[in-house]
Amino acid sequence: MQDIHYVIDTFFTLFAMTLIILMVPGFAMLEAGLVRTKNVTAVLTVNTLIYLIASLGFLLVGYTLAFGSWENDSMSKWAAFLFQMAFVGKVINIVSGGVSERIRIIPIVLFTLIASTLIYPLVVNITWGADFLKDTFLDLHLYDLAGSTVIHSTGGWALLAAILIIGPRRNRYGPNGQIRVIPASNIPLVTLGAFLLWIGWFGFNGGSVGSISTKESADTVALTILNTNTAGLAGGLIVAILGYMRYKRFDITMILNGALGGLVAITAGPDLYNIYTPLLIGMIGGLLVEVMVPVFDKLRLDDPVGALSVHLVNGIWGTLAVGIFASNGSDITLAGQIKGILIVAIFAFTSAYIFLRIINLFVPLRASDDEQLEGMDLAECGMEAYPEFKKSF
Amino acid sequence: MQDIHYVIDTFFTLFAMTLIILMVPGFAMLEAGLVRTKNVTAVLTVNTLIYLIASLGFLLVGYTLAFGSWENDSMSKWAAFLFQMAFVGKVINIVSGGVSERIRIIPIVLFTLIASTLIYPLVVNITWGADFLKDTFLDLHLYDLAGSTVIHSTGGWALLAAILIIGPRRNRYGPNGQIRVIPASNIPLVTLGAFLLWIGWFGFNGGSVGSISTKESADTVALTILNTNTAGLAGGLIVAILGYMRYKRFDITMILNGALGGLVAITAGPDLYNIYTPLLIGMIGGLLVEVMVPVFDKLRLDDPVGALSVHLVNGIWGTLAVGIFASNGSDITLAGQIKGILIVAIFAFTSAYIFLRIINLFVPLRASDDEQLEGMDLAECGMEAYPEFKKSF
Amino acid sequence: MQDIHYVIDTFFTLFAMTLIILMVPGFAMLEAGLVRTKNVTAVLTVNTLIYLIASLGFLLVGYTLAFGSWENDSMSKWAAFLFQMAFVGKVINIVSGGVSERIRIIPIVLFTLIASTLIYPLVVNITWGADFLKDTFLDLHLYDLAGSTVIHSTGGWALLAAILIIGPRRNRYGPNGQIRVIPASNIPLVTLGAFLLWIGWFGFNGGSVGSISTKESADTVALTILNTNTAGLAGGLIVAILGYMRYKRFDITMILNGALGGLVAITAGPDLYNIYTPLLIGMIGGLLVEVMVPVFDKLRLDDPVGALSVHLVNGIWGTLAVGIFASNGSDITLAGQIKGILIVAIFAFTSAYIFLRIINLFVPLRASDDEQLEGMDLAECGMEAYPEFKKSF
Repeated sequence: MQDIHYVIDTFFTLFAMTLIILMVPGFAMLEAGLVRTKNVTAVLTVNTLIYLIASLGFLLVGYTLAFGSWENDSMSKWAAFLFQMAFVGKVINIVSGGVSERIRIIPIVLFTLIASTLIYPLVVNITWGADFLKDTFLDLHLYDLAGSTVIHSTGGWALLAAILIIGPRRNRYGPNGQIRVIPASNIPLVTLGAFLLWIGWFGFNGGSVGSISTKESADTVALTILNTNTAGLAGGLIVAILGYMRYKRFDITMILNGALGGLVAITAGPDLYNIYTPLLIGMIGGLLVEVMVPVFDKLRLDDPVGALSVHLVNGIWGTLAVGIFASNGSDITLAGQIKGILIVAIFAFTSAYIFLRIINLFVPLRASDDEQLEGMDLAECGMEAYPEFKKSF
Repeated sequence: MQDIHYVIDTFFTLFAMTLIILMVPGFAMLEAGLVRTKNVTAVLTVNTLIYLIASLGFLLVGYTLAFGSWENDSMSKWAAFLFQMAFVGKVINIVSGGVSERIRIIPIVLFTLIASTLIYPLVVNITWGADFLKDTFLDLHLYDLAGSTVIHSTGGWALLAAILIIGPRRNRYGPNGQIRVIPASNIPLVTLGAFLLWIGWFGFNGGSVGSISTKESADTVALTILNTNTAGLAGGLIVAILGYMRYKRFDITMILNGALGGLVAITAGPDLYNIYTPLLIGMIGGLLVEVMVPVFDKLRLDDPVGALSVHLVNGIWGTLAVGIFASNGSDITLAGQIKGILIVAIFAFTSAYIFLRIINLFVPLRASDDEQLEGMDLAECGMEAYPEFKKSF
Repeated sequence: MQDIHYVIDTFFTLFAMTLIILMVPGFAMLEAGLVRTKNVTAVLTVNTLIYLIASLGFLLVGYTLAFGSWENDSMSKWAAFLFQMAFVGKVINIVSGGVSERIRIIPIVLFTLIASTLIYPLVVNITWGADFLKDTFLDLHLYDLAGSTVIHSTGGWALLAAILIIGPRRNRYGPNGQIRVIPASNIPLVTLGAFLLWIGWFGFNGGSVGSISTKESADTVALTILNTNTAGLAGGLIVAILGYMRYKRFDITMILNGALGGLVAITAGPDLYNIYTPLLIGMIGGLLVEVMVPVFDKLRLDDPVGALSVHLVNGIWGTLAVGIFASNGSDITLAGQIKGILIVAIFAFTSAYIFLRIINLFVPLRASDDEQLEGMDLAECGMEAYPEFKKSF
């Protein structure tokens, strides 16, 4: 009978992992749709290289650093690894998306190597993993089921470091504070990518429960997926309503980013809430996207895909939300959540900043203005994404 | 041991739900590929809004109206809800697809709200749900495993109501009965969408068995998925053969619609047939698509995606097929199937017609000729789907 | 309790089957992205027809020929069939991809009929199936878990036969040995397709273990999926590194083909290796793609998607790898692997060559130069893939 739990949890974890791997084409399509056609091949290449390098880096180094050991009694250790491996690239995707259209590929490759073998594994170590800070004054008391902080804020902080170093895209901001709007080049790809991410999230959050083989855990997994979905719905809907009220138009890229914001926000505690709280958490998540996208633009933090608002801001919000709505006064407290946010923030931002600065010494992160004008595709890949379609510019 | 059934059925239902959610990008890609580029963003926006609103409407109101209670003993009630929730948007997708390229977005939003909280829940109530008509003379004796009638005809009748109110696209029919052919703008998206729908159907029909945790139910689920697939194969193949015989050409959009027609037709009773009957049911399904698409055009019922033939006609045919091929003289009879078809038809058509008329009083359903000429994307979303590609018209 | 194993293995096999069906849009998108826009509709039509015909052919004839009987004690026989059915089209996809941009559709349809009812079922018969060669001197002693030989080499040999008969695309090779490079038309589709194939591979290889319902088999399935993924990672990465070293550019189509090469190579024995061996097997797989693509071009074997290198060469390599890294001296030996490779090679190549020659007598395989110039889409389907986008040629 014990074996049946082992079997079902292994199967379930493999199912969840498969959904998360759908996020690889998900991110790739979302970003390929959001950037200009001249940068599409580069974006796809970066997404692919991140999956290759981050997964291998985690296999060879990162996983052991994060968890100390591969042993696992409740399911196949290979399944447990695969599930964790599926997460790694996501953190770096957040970074690469936000600096797309001007980042060169080799620096992203090097950063992926460092992030998957060192930065991210250490964040996991002190949160979900072996916890080398345990019983020190830095010991975190963070509840973060599927990574509002561990995945999304970590990626977001690293992205902020990258944007500060690399600067905005050529001609994005005018000399007198003008902001040049650059439209997404392929809306079907944006939509496809967003929904593949959404579906992947069911595996991300559902699988993070860690078991489905008891009645209680089956209920928790189902509640987790329900709440995850609800927050995404609410995040998208609030942006649709606000956007329509302001402009009498529906902006599908903002709506989808609002939904992703809601999904990030629920990720810290989808197992902790009743089925109505995610409406509020997701709505605030969507609202934060709507509000923060222009704020970051005013700060001249150029982010073509809105990743700072979606992942960093909502990663923080979602982690706070656990402390606000699900504090139990002992192991889950608002203070513990804030401490977790801060420690991860300091570590992720600082380490990313330092490593990116070092990389920048050897290989400049930023493509030249000429290369950006020509497009990253020709500069970095020697290949257009749509060579036969006449362009209208 | 009882818990293991609960666990496996919860897990299976979550798996099936995930496949159905793949139909969200599935419908979106199919429709985005079938319409002209100037209407692609609007179509994607509508598909996204339908998922947001219909799912929330069903969560907050519709599900309770349909089933009376959230309680469930055989699996997690959250999983049971999610599975049913995944269906709702599909009904409305059928409507929105068939009136695309001239419907405005706000009316679709309002109709989605009504359909997900009232019309569809009432149809479910009298078929799969709490059944407020039970023991009245209107009590249905309908066998409809996964919704040939409940989903597809319901959506199809509502679509017919919408088409009657909104009329054909600008310039679609000439003054002397000419029919202007409007080619699909993106065949890869059509193909991708159709196959995502196909795969989603395995979850739709397989999950509708409601259990996989006994030997009998496991066999039934597997047979259901096999028969579902076979009907799709047969529906597509017959259209390919007929089309080639008539035109010496293969029309991929018709072939895929034929396959979808076969899938709709099998949906009422995929668990009831031996493995050869679905060949016949699917072939007739495909044949009906091939025959009815030009018929609806002659009737000037303009339907850019062929939804009337695929969903309405085959929804009816599939429900009849159960009465023809699987009648057992007691709880499954041809008369019972016909009664079910008729009652749902009258209710779905009438209620959709009335509500759409009311909506039309406040917000006109139909975009003006100028807006249609310019494209729904600029009129409703202020955003082109492919802004950088030069258009050849 | 016995029933629970039956239930879980049925469910798992249906899950694996679903992933494999994702390879239908996977192949379709990959090939649609790799060919020129004027041939995209034809490629999508061929992919769709292959799924329709191959699956029905296997249902009605092929499965019984391969396995002798539908009976199955360990899971639902319908699920066991569906899993095997999902494989068939893949073999023929390999052929159709490699002769795209000049093959006509009717010959592919006829070949699909023959391959799914005769050629492939006989290959399965002597490897995984009823084995009519058992106890003859031709009895194979081949270990091939998920088909490096049975699927990929079989498809590859048939493709080689087809290329020898049909010849290269018009103007592909100049009179003085020049090779004209024809760029892929849609890189997002290539990327999407490759990752859908990758995810499908988890079902392909994982499901081929045949059971997940015991602790041992759950471990084997998880190890199989881990090793499958690792080989894909290594195959892609080595091509990225080599390509960058040679050209200072990242060629995403080659990187993805390298990953697919690694996935093909691991397919014969992903359950047999420790977690590091797949790094080597996959790297050699990627290397073979990098090396062999130009070799086949020098031999004027024109293959627009690189299928000979990915499927034929790596199918052979992967089967040999089992003999090299996992020989146990009794049922798995290098000699047995070589014998298996040779017998399948002779049978698959010869039978495909003969049948294609016969088909060619009645319906020429090769489209005329005029048809190729105009594009297969107009010639065979009367429909452009992207009618509204202005083309730049």
